[in-house]
Amino acid sequence: MREKKNSTIKLIALGGVGEMGKNMHLVEVDKDIFVVDAGLMFPEDEMLGIDIVIPDITYLTENSDRVKAIFLTHGHEDHIGALSYVLRQLNVPVYGTRLTLALAKAKLKEQEYSGLTNFIEINSDSMLELDSVDVSFFRTNHSIPDSVGICFHTSEGAIVHTGDFKFDQAATELYKADIGKMANIGDSGVLCLLSDSTEAEKPGYTTSEAIVAREMCDAFYNAPGRVIAASFASDLIGIQHIFDAAYESGRKIAVVGKSLERIYHIALDLGYLHVKEEIIIPISEIKDHADKEIVVLTTGSQGEPIEALQKMARQAHKQVNIEKGDTVLIAASPLKGSELFISKTVDMLFRAGANVISGKRMIHASSHGSQEELKFMINLMKPKLFIPVHGEYRMLKSHVKVAKSCGLTDQQIYIAEKGETVEIKDGKFQPGAKVPSGNILIDGSGVGDVGNIVLRDRKLLSEDGILIVVVTLTRRERKIVSGPEIISRGFVYVRESEKLMEDSEKLVREIVEKNISKDSFDWSSLKQDMRDGLNRSLYEKTKRRPMILPIIMEV
Amino acid sequence: MREKKNSTIKLIALGGVGEMGKNMHLVEVDKDIFVVDAGLMFPEDEMLGIDIVIPDITYLTENSDRVKAIFLTHGHEDHIGALSYVLRQLNVPVYGTRLTLALAKAKLKEQEYSGLTNFIEINSDSMLELDSVDVSFFRTNHSIPDSVGICFHTSEGAIVHTGDFKFDQAATELYKADIGKMANIGDSGVLCLLSDSTEAEKPGYTTSEAIVAREMCDAFYNAPGRVIAASFASDLIGIQHIFDAAYESGRKIAVVGKSLERIYHIALDLGYLHVKEEIIIPISEIKDHADKEIVVLTTGSQGEPIEALQKMARQAHKQVNIEKGDTVLIAASPLKGSELFISKTVDMLFRAGANVISGKRMIHASSHGSQEELKFMINLMKPKLFIPVHGEYRMLKSHVKVAKSCGLTDQQIYIAEKGETVEIKDGKFQPGAKVPSGNILIDGSGVGDVGNIVLRDRKLLSEDGILIVVVTLTRRERKIVSGPEIISRGFVYVRESEKLMEDSEKLVREIVEKNISKDSFDWSSLKQDMRDGLNRSLYEKTKRRPMILPIIMEV
Repeated sequence: MREKKNSTIKLIALGGVGEMGKNMHLVEVDKDIFVVDAGLMFPEDEMLGIDIVIPDITYLTENSDRVKAIFLTHGHEDHIGALSYVLRQLNVPVYGTRLTLALAKAKLKEQEYSGLTNFIEINSDSMLELDSVDVSFFRTNHSIPDSVGICFHTSEGAIVHTGDFKFDQAATELYKADIGKMANIGDSGVLCLLSDSTEAEKPGYTTSEAIVAREMCDAFYNAPGRVIAASFASDLIGIQHIFDAAYESGRKIAVVGKSLERIYHIALDLGYLHVKEEIIIPISEIKDHADKEIVVLTTGSQGEPIEALQKMARQAHKQVNIEKGDTVLIAASPLKGSELFISKTVDMLFRAGANVISGKRMIHASSHGSQEELKFMINLMKPKLFIPVHGEYRMLKSHVKVAKSCGLTDQQIYIAEKGETVEIKDGKFQPGAKVPSGNILIDGSGVGDVGNIVLRDRKLLSEDGILIVVVTLTRRERKIVSGPEIISRGFVYVRESEKLMEDSEKLVREIVEKNISKDSFDWSSLKQDMRDGLNRSLYEKTKRRPMILPIIMEV
Repeated sequence: MREKKNSTIKLIALGGVGEMGKNMHLVEVDKDIFVVDAGLMFPEDEMLGIDIVIPDITYLTENSDRVKAIFLTHGHEDHIGALSYVLRQLNVPVYGTRLTLALAKAKLKEQEYSGLTNFIEINSDSMLELDSVDVSFFRTNHSIPDSVGICFHTSEGAIVHTGDFKFDQAATELYKADIGKMANIGDSGVLCLLSDSTEAEKPGYTTSEAIVAREMCDAFYNAPGRVIAASFASDLIGIQHIFDAAYESGRKIAVVGKSLERIYHIALDLGYLHVKEEIIIPISEIKDHADKEIVVLTTGSQGEPIEALQKMARQAHKQVNIEKGDTVLIAASPLKGSELFISKTVDMLFRAGANVISGKRMIHASSHGSQEELKFMINLMKPKLFIPVHGEYRMLKSHVKVAKSCGLTDQQIYIAEKGETVEIKDGKFQPGAKVPSGNILIDGSGVGDVGNIVLRDRKLLSEDGILIVVVTLTRRERKIVSGPEIISRGFVYVRESEKLMEDSEKLVREIVEKNISKDSFDWSSLKQDMRDGLNRSLYEKTKRRPMILPIIMEV
């Protein structure tokens, strides 16, 4: 505990609560603001055409002089993927472990960020003595090595952010949590614990990676021909299992997919992935070996590994296609919203002659702790106050129940909404004002320029298409000199709808002529009449409502 | 078995194999074609703006004089929902049980079909003596009463189509399968069995409805305040459980949602739903009772019940909104592709203060039999030949394994693709030619007029929107007299992109002027140049690719 008394302690989530992804939590001590993680979120269904989503950091840019540091808990995209956007607006040092910083740097490069960076490597023994607080770290067990939790030591006790974690008692050296250190932090007095809620709805313990490793090995042994394994590049432990199972079962392994190349090489170079070099072969050489001696590993971020499998099933992959007798392992849990996509892919793989091993066998484990592990964290940290983070609302809610079962009371627990300032005063929560928070949508190179209006238009366009009416009038006499011409896209198949188009043209002509003969003529009411008339007539004939866009040209 | 020898027996699936929905199987005996079911499918993600999907019935219309009957196995939309479209093209009698025909009639009305119908009610004792075959029926156990399997008696043995089924040993009278009759059919010689594959991937037995009823009752007893129950209208047994649990727990029940109204009244009138009248109250009266005495039942087809819950959570429902202390039961399995939508809804409900009971408690059972039940059907029917139907490819594939475990050999089993003609000759499968089959998309009142081009355009429009360029030229001198004018929708927020629009106008003007000064001027290359130029320039500036639509008007 610090001797210098801290006057104010505030916590604000800019992302990651009430949603999965774009994790970013602020810890404010006195005048200083510390940022834990800068993650991205992948767009949801209704965000048509959007590439990624990042947190709104208005609060940080408005208080830029107070922002002292960004701490990264680990190298997953939902924790580091917004960093380039933050650094474009804030010049602030970034702290992280060796692998995390290496992956963050690679991500910055991928996102074409070429500005200044001040990256400071820490390890779990580091102790930073900053102006308002001391900061220390503790190793956690997650699906990627070098994951840490962060501890802000204030005069009132420690503020602990767990990062993502589980407690796999069979974890290998690279993945081991430092339970002793956590216990010490707990003994020295934790004021508030912010803890990962991802699997708070799941009773018991998360399946051990040791079981996954064994199942994977079994599957490799029993596969009658080639093994095609698909996995997310960020799930380094899963990739480790695949390499290990290949080695154990006497198979060579060829890697396809560009995202893997990056993470894989970084992890390999830094010693976070252990592979016998001799089992790796270029994809071009798989034909030189018996089918029973081959593993093809396909990977990437988000949908990429599954898209690659689809291509292989459709015999459209550039490097390798599914053959009868192949065994496909999908070593990943489907992301919410991608279930249909995965089940279609599985169908295509079966059709192509493969056997598919997915969800039902234990070839993949969650990278987050279930209820008993969450209790373990609470019991180690013995916090005075508790805030569930990293999860959708029902997960946070479920985590509250878990915390209560450990003896915490309602007064000690708080579900903070996104953007809500929560002050800790005299050992109690004091909810405060809201700061700007929300989704900044990134589409192409545009950051935040796609908002509700554009999305609403995309939605309308996606449902019934668009119908454009152009007519050229003379300015003075208001005479039609060209058109009306009608063009549609995404509405009806035009070649089979000539009558509909002709009728529409006729209708527009009538509307225009009626309008221009009026004394009280004006452009906007002509356009409105065209819209209304067409809307009514098209709905009557087709029961569809395309977007209608009247364009009047003057000469 | 018939004495008159049948010369040819063919089977063709026009839907329902390799997909979920739009079930339609043809049984051809000699010159006669019999149709089993005429179902619809709900559109998949990529079918933007489509309302429903029906089978391609070209083969039937081209052989309309040979089509003798449509048999409906039960009243679910994936079995009766395409009937109005079939009857618009074919004048053919429709056979079904009492409830099935009543629901089919209601569906015809809903789909505004007012043509001729020749509906013939059958029951499970009916025996139809038709020209080429005799047809009998057997009662099956499903989530809606009056479900039957169909048996075509040919001189070579019976062709049996199971319809949808499970074997719930605790089924109540209305839902009981006629196992004795099935055994008799099996004993008299089954040439080919076509059997429901929906749950062929699931080991063991499907959860009994008796367990669901008990869990439902428990949940109603334990709910501290109101119960809001959501269920699909077609899942009549689920609705029966809710009524029973309300009665048992001393609650009144109010019903919201229009689809229920229909199915519910039909089922109630015909005696297929048993409800104590006194427990039903209008929704306006729920305030007259204590919260602990209330159940609100919301229902409908497809997403409707969940949409209603969302509205209630957002406090935007016309009749009833979520209050703190409500218990929400989602008594339905999420349809593939709607998982995200449901999980969002659950989050909103929790936020609104409700407790939500869904997937994890057994308040809903599958309406299809698991592997042990599928084996039971095979063992009852003892078919010479076997075709798995009603399921995606991997389910059919899994059903094949199940059939093999019952002793059937590869030669006895055939996975028929959609549209594939499978002849049965000398007790063996003879795969034959393909007939037209596929998805007919229905959008508004258009049947089949939305094809790949329109869908592709909708997809493009949904991703980056559209940019329209209009320019008016004089016909002779080819001079710009108006424009270029640029309008966009769904691309960028125009008010914040003035510079981009101005630059684009300038670019178009340059392109037009360069083109019209050429000797070899022609319209199509001008348009192409506009498209290419804008495409390049916009991608460079925004990394987006809106659809670009150049329109040239002549005066």
